[in-house]
Amino acid sequence: MAVSEKVRGFISQSSWIRRMFEEGDRLKKQFGAEKVFDFSIGNPSVEPPIEFKRALRQVAAEDVSGAHGYMPNAGYLKTRQVVAQALSRDQGVTLSADHIIMTCGAAGALNVICKVLLESGDELLAPTPCFVEYRIYADNANGVAKFVRTKDDFSLDLAAMRDAITERTKIVLINSPNNPTGKVYNEASIRGLAELLEDRNRAYGRDIYLVSDEPYRDIIYDGITVPSILSAYRNSMIVSSYSKSLSLAGERIGYLAVNPAISDVEEVMGGLILFNRTLGFVNAPALMQRVIARIQGVTVDVEEYRKKRELLCDGLSSIGYEFIKPDGTFYLFPKAPGGDDIEFVMALTKRKILTVPGSGFGWPGNFRIAFCVDDATIVNSMKGFAKTFKEYR
Amino acid sequence: MAVSEKVRGFISQSSWIRRMFEEGDRLKKQFGAEKVFDFSIGNPSVEPPIEFKRALRQVAAEDVSGAHGYMPNAGYLKTRQVVAQALSRDQGVTLSADHIIMTCGAAGALNVICKVLLESGDELLAPTPCFVEYRIYADNANGVAKFVRTKDDFSLDLAAMRDAITERTKIVLINSPNNPTGKVYNEASIRGLAELLEDRNRAYGRDIYLVSDEPYRDIIYDGITVPSILSAYRNSMIVSSYSKSLSLAGERIGYLAVNPAISDVEEVMGGLILFNRTLGFVNAPALMQRVIARIQGVTVDVEEYRKKRELLCDGLSSIGYEFIKPDGTFYLFPKAPGGDDIEFVMALTKRKILTVPGSGFGWPGNFRIAFCVDDATIVNSMKGFAKTFKEYR
Repeated sequence: MAVSEKVRGFISQSSWIRRMFEEGDRLKKQFGAEKVFDFSIGNPSVEPPIEFKRALRQVAAEDVSGAHGYMPNAGYLKTRQVVAQALSRDQGVTLSADHIIMTCGAAGALNVICKVLLESGDELLAPTPCFVEYRIYADNANGVAKFVRTKDDFSLDLAAMRDAITERTKIVLINSPNNPTGKVYNEASIRGLAELLEDRNRAYGRDIYLVSDEPYRDIIYDGITVPSILSAYRNSMIVSSYSKSLSLAGERIGYLAVNPAISDVEEVMGGLILFNRTLGFVNAPALMQRVIARIQGVTVDVEEYRKKRELLCDGLSSIGYEFIKPDGTFYLFPKAPGGDDIEFVMALTKRKILTVPGSGFGWPGNFRIAFCVDDATIVNSMKGFAKTFKEYR
Repeated sequence: MAVSEKVRGFISQSSWIRRMFEEGDRLKKQFGAEKVFDFSIGNPSVEPPIEFKRALRQVAAEDVSGAHGYMPNAGYLKTRQVVAQALSRDQGVTLSADHIIMTCGAAGALNVICKVLLESGDELLAPTPCFVEYRIYADNANGVAKFVRTKDDFSLDLAAMRDAITERTKIVLINSPNNPTGKVYNEASIRGLAELLEDRNRAYGRDIYLVSDEPYRDIIYDGITVPSILSAYRNSMIVSSYSKSLSLAGERIGYLAVNPAISDVEEVMGGLILFNRTLGFVNAPALMQRVIARIQGVTVDVEEYRKKRELLCDGLSSIGYEFIKPDGTFYLFPKAPGGDDIEFVMALTKRKILTVPGSGFGWPGNFRIAFCVDDATIVNSMKGFAKTFKEYR
């Protein structure tokens, strides 16, 4: 037996997202890419902005000695400084470069945080629906992920969270704007969550950390604002990346930011930097660190995603699908007609429409449509969405 | 208590290499960079070759849709194909793209391999001297690193390795050309090691995996060849990176290659790809994958390092230092005059010479000089090396 028992278990229940992505590959080879409506993966369709391309060409053209070599494991000072400045404005809390670690995307940052904060058996609590591989991140650090449902409108259910927190809870991990629902947890719910955590800290005599995974922070609609986590709660960290805001998902460039007011801030930063190295990341890719330092505040054209949202919501709504219109992200999470999300998603694949069952996000009964695709994919899929709807309503 | 007990332990015994690197930073700020002789870290001094810079500019100038987005977690097919071709020639074993995963450097690859192969408590055995953070990589996967000394000439001590292998040994990890000694394990010793492992496989009824960490494979001198691991032993994997061969240490681009003849090869690859994603790497940086696909076989000018080796060896030899001339890499691992490596390294820092004690490589009594530095640093450090030698001989 080559691979460990645990790995074998994870392989067998491997991500629905990747499974559908691979099913898409198969269908595309069989029928041609233009015949397949692939809404399976959050791979940004909108190209990186022109400012990115310009900065990349500049950095590539420069002949700076040692530019591709090691830098401090936390990242270039200059990059961390501009990230700290941008975040300080955004969060209403003053951060310095000392509170920032450049990471291999948000996934890298989350693994590092779990490794440093979780003792064996400690719990990470996350509201569902959410990205299911949070479970593996916790397990990688010998922690245990626990999940608690949000309300029917996908807002935080603070009473349920209170019941789910135990004396082993070390991390509460939220993702807002949320994948797969597009929900933004509002100011009141973040304030309520902060009060709840303070209360539980007092009850158990230990600190619970609030970690906010926010790579979709810049992809929001209708003038909504995403509340500041750092000003709401002292023991907090932010994890983000440029995967979605600059369409750089394959480049693995992101960061983590630690609240300057966190307990033992220097020890925490020391641990995070050590494990950013020793989990094998070593440092975030050098070239992309230098690129993003030059284009802080630049994002993809969110208006493009907003139009796609309208196109998709209008189309599905007129067919009869039920959903909550997303506040942000490029995901829609409708109810599966008939109630069985896996069966319905499989039925959609027969029309060459690829989506992901809500079961893959801890929320059976719904399914996720990633609308970061060409407009034509949305428009041309409607016939298949309508036919499948009629079979299952 | 913010960070876990284990993390606190690791921080306190943190890497000597990074500690000396930081001591260097302090000294440079105090006295000016030109006054400090920093031999502490293997950060390549030789610039990436012109072919790299040209390929980087080309790739940056192209406007390929989705070029910065996700690709399959194992990496671009095209990149894996050219890596497989180059490795097939080099190893005398035919590999395809299906046996290659592009990784965030060799450190990323090693963490993924440990995670997939080690069950809790399984042992990873590595000959010393070696990179000390192998210990943390094994621990990250709940395995246990065990170390076994090489002979006095730093060649493999097969008898000692035989004694050190137990029924819990799952991985034997070698690093050749070796950091910190520059030793290349020769053909006979690799063949002997393969026989030993086959014998132990039979004895214990389980497979031991031979993992060869070879980022220095291309940095060799005097016409020496590095033996093929894949043709010597069936259950083998190679881990490498472009950090040293192309001076791209900060870009985090490397790969792992699995012997096509390995047991359960598809399951092993599935596990490795899954954990390349879920340990948080997701995939190797997209842009660098596209760059290195165009310049397979290109390396930095090794002649530059050879000249530095001569300069350093001649200088230290004439002072009276004892060492074995390295077969490859840009490291020299002399005996510490007086015998106490930590004391001697500290004495060198008083002359503003930064090196790393052998204790940081599981080999007290010697110290490492990373000669990937300007020639002037080597030449101008000789006075300090001479004075400190006189105090301790």
